Amino acid sequence: MQEAWEIISNLVRSRKSDQLEQYLDTLSRAEKARAISRLEDDVHSHVLECLSNEAAADLMEDIFDNQAVELIEDLPIDKAAAIVDEMVSDEQADLLGHLEEDHKEEILQKMDPEEAVDARLLVQFPEDTAGGMMVTEYLSFSELLRAKDVIDNLRNNGDEYSDYDVQYIYVISKTGLLKGILPLRSILLSAKNTSLNELSIKNPLTVSTETTLDELKKIFGKYDFIGIPVTDDTGQLVGVVLRKAVLEAVDEMIGKSFLNFSGIVGGEELRSMPLFTRSFHRLSWLSVNIFLNIIAASVIAFYQDTLTTVIALAVFLPIISDMSGCSGNQAVAVSIRELSLGQVKPDELIRVLFKEAGIGIINGIILGLLIGGVAFCWKGNFYLGLVVGGALALNSLFAVCLGGSIPLVLKHFKMDPALASSPILTTITDMCGFFMVLSFAQSILPKLN
Amino acid sequence: MQEAWEIISNLVRSRKSDQLEQYLDTLSRAEKARAISRLEDDVHSHVLECLSNEAAADLMEDIFDNQAVELIEDLPIDKAAAIVDEMVSDEQADLLGHLEEDHKEEILQKMDPEEAVDARLLVQFPEDTAGGMMVTEYLSFSELLRAKDVIDNLRNNGDEYSDYDVQYIYVISKTGLLKGILPLRSILLSAKNTSLNELSIKNPLTVSTETTLDELKKIFGKYDFIGIPVTDDTGQLVGVVLRKAVLEAVDEMIGKSFLNFSGIVGGEELRSMPLFTRSFHRLSWLSVNIFLNIIAASVIAFYQDTLTTVIALAVFLPIISDMSGCSGNQAVAVSIRELSLGQVKPDELIRVLFKEAGIGIINGIILGLLIGGVAFCWKGNFYLGLVVGGALALNSLFAVCLGGSIPLVLKHFKMDPALASSPILTTITDMCGFFMVLSFAQSILPKLN
Repeated sequence: MQEAWEIISNLVRSRKSDQLEQYLDTLSRAEKARAISRLEDDVHSHVLECLSNEAAADLMEDIFDNQAVELIEDLPIDKAAAIVDEMVSDEQADLLGHLEEDHKEEILQKMDPEEAVDARLLVQFPEDTAGGMMVTEYLSFSELLRAKDVIDNLRNNGDEYSDYDVQYIYVISKTGLLKGILPLRSILLSAKNTSLNELSIKNPLTVSTETTLDELKKIFGKYDFIGIPVTDDTGQLVGVVLRKAVLEAVDEMIGKSFLNFSGIVGGEELRSMPLFTRSFHRLSWLSVNIFLNIIAASVIAFYQDTLTTVIALAVFLPIISDMSGCSGNQAVAVSIRELSLGQVKPDELIRVLFKEAGIGIINGIILGLLIGGVAFCWKGNFYLGLVVGGALALNSLFAVCLGGSIPLVLKHFKMDPALASSPILTTITDMCGFFMVLSFAQSILPKLN
Repeated sequence: MQEAWEIISNLVRSRKSDQLEQYLDTLSRAEKARAISRLEDDVHSHVLECLSNEAAADLMEDIFDNQAVELIEDLPIDKAAAIVDEMVSDEQADLLGHLEEDHKEEILQKMDPEEAVDARLLVQFPEDTAGGMMVTEYLSFSELLRAKDVIDNLRNNGDEYSDYDVQYIYVISKTGLLKGILPLRSILLSAKNTSLNELSIKNPLTVSTETTLDELKKIFGKYDFIGIPVTDDTGQLVGVVLRKAVLEAVDEMIGKSFLNFSGIVGGEELRSMPLFTRSFHRLSWLSVNIFLNIIAASVIAFYQDTLTTVIALAVFLPIISDMSGCSGNQAVAVSIRELSLGQVKPDELIRVLFKEAGIGIINGIILGLLIGGVAFCWKGNFYLGLVVGGALALNSLFAVCLGGSIPLVLKHFKMDPALASSPILTTITDMCGFFMVLSFAQSILPKLN
């Protein structure tokens, strides 16, 4: 079977625009993104040219932002502007926000003036605020109109509205102030001459352009709305943030947090990105980590004599380091998850310590007995088992308490728990673990040989 | 300021039902779940009793499944059944699926017979299939009806339909076969006497009850629908799976995968769960890990003499183990993320190896130079730097190639990459790293002192 990018390449090379558009329609968003990332350079730079502006805009909306930027960079400004014109407002703003300042300005100059005004408005808002997530495609009507005016309008503009979410109609004053909202169903069921003012639900819930993703998540968790109107400081309706956009943003945030947690700085890496970008993002975290590692391991250097005397300890040091790290990271992960689900607040340190201590004691004792038993069986020395097992037990308890707390503390100081928790945790637990094994050993050295 | 659970406790203890219902309405889903998890036993077991069935059902839908199970376990069967009756069908099925078999049967017996039939249908489907995610609250009308019949019906049953998603109407034959779908808007804009058969879009996209979450994600990624009808083998309409439900399930899956990745077996832990459950889930992963660790560290045991001769190596062993693990885990995380985004397929091992090798060479050389430099500066021995730096460089390259591949291989064999990738990776890279450092050292032992 031919892969999608092979089919696309053939269609682009033979300039079969209609067939290309039809074929793209059969692909999911993920398949489109994957296919675009696999195209060879000569095809990659001609895909958009081969499509109508509408089809190109659809494609741009479906792939990743960095891919959309790469595609549009290759295009003449006129074509680029025509494509951006066709995009939904929030995607438009996302894309423009990722372009170089000059390039963005050139495209905005060539865009349809009305679209450009909207785009300039949206692009100024950070991506993870209501302003950055809202769309400007919504239906608003003057409060003075009647139900039948709206029905006539819908009938006459059906095509234009096909991309709109028309579950709600927003009722505004002459000066653009949001006066109320009106479910489409109410219009359907009302007498034709009733005025919108009469029909609409007054004082609807609104958010401001600065409302953050966290708050939006909370609001959509509280109410079952499909969209919430966004107003500016003066009460003017400026856009609508859709539940869909918020859920997608949350989804992306969780994905980013997962990659950050694993040491991918920036939270974004696809293997289709340039080698040096990928390498740099990984290395920036690894190089911090290696210095933290050296600091932790320097504890061992202070005990070289002890270690020379009881060389068996060298076998257990990496085990204790790794196991404490694992136990602690479990607690880190639970705290990060609970924070993101809103189930723990940064000031609930005592609760977390208490809850983790319980697990730390149980798991510490069991793991300590296991490793102590192995040490005893291997060398036949009870004290070796005691040193190694005791150190792991205590360090496991310490690690879960620390691991549970670090994300809360970082969050309290408005830092990202995903990126920094794990390196901080393992550095401290390594130092502590090495110190315990080696100092315990030193204190009963004669009994260990 | 009083915390939510304190306010709830006061209201429950003084049996102020109306105020409790009003107060719960002001809370988001996350806040409700958090408050319920903090209640003391005497309040916890009386919350639902203090609410009307409708309000209790709303609460049950908003909190976590395990919390809902705990709440309902305390209730008399009659009250429990009355509450479950009021829940939306997919949440109903979720809850019943989490109950003990006997308890579930008792509740089903006491439920409204019509609701119970729906619930019995839904509860048989796995949670992550279209059958398990669909709702049975949708609007279906016979193809023989006319537009105005639907409008009349909507007008007369507005209350009952208030929970329904009414963007689409499903048009069925006399025997319940799905014939077409019809956007509410089309009805609004059509002549009153047009028949539904004429208005509706024929051969709509459908899924079967067995369609998996992965496939649903793909379909909703391809089409902009709010819901997709679910049919059984005979073409009968049995439910509708909503985009919302799919996005929430994906969200949950990503969260589970994150916890699995950090060694929380089962992918679920909230600190409100019982201590021994939490401890056991963590320990089951840790105890596998400790044995893998012992296997890896046993490599060191074979080189005790070398280590005694060059004790400085003992300082570097944990560093090499940890850094290789970090590099490899970055690659693991990118593979898991790319798999879940559909950007890499399990059979693309060669591509991943090639992409990772590039990073492995760059980062390996830089990290190797760093750690080699530190070793050289510390002991003033060029060969020590060479052994340590060379081992880390080679092991980093090995770790990223391995880390990138393991998730693809696990996925190919239908295993969960999140849970097993990291332990497999670190065991192999530890063994390999220890072996390289110690065997390199042994081969040039005279030069190291």
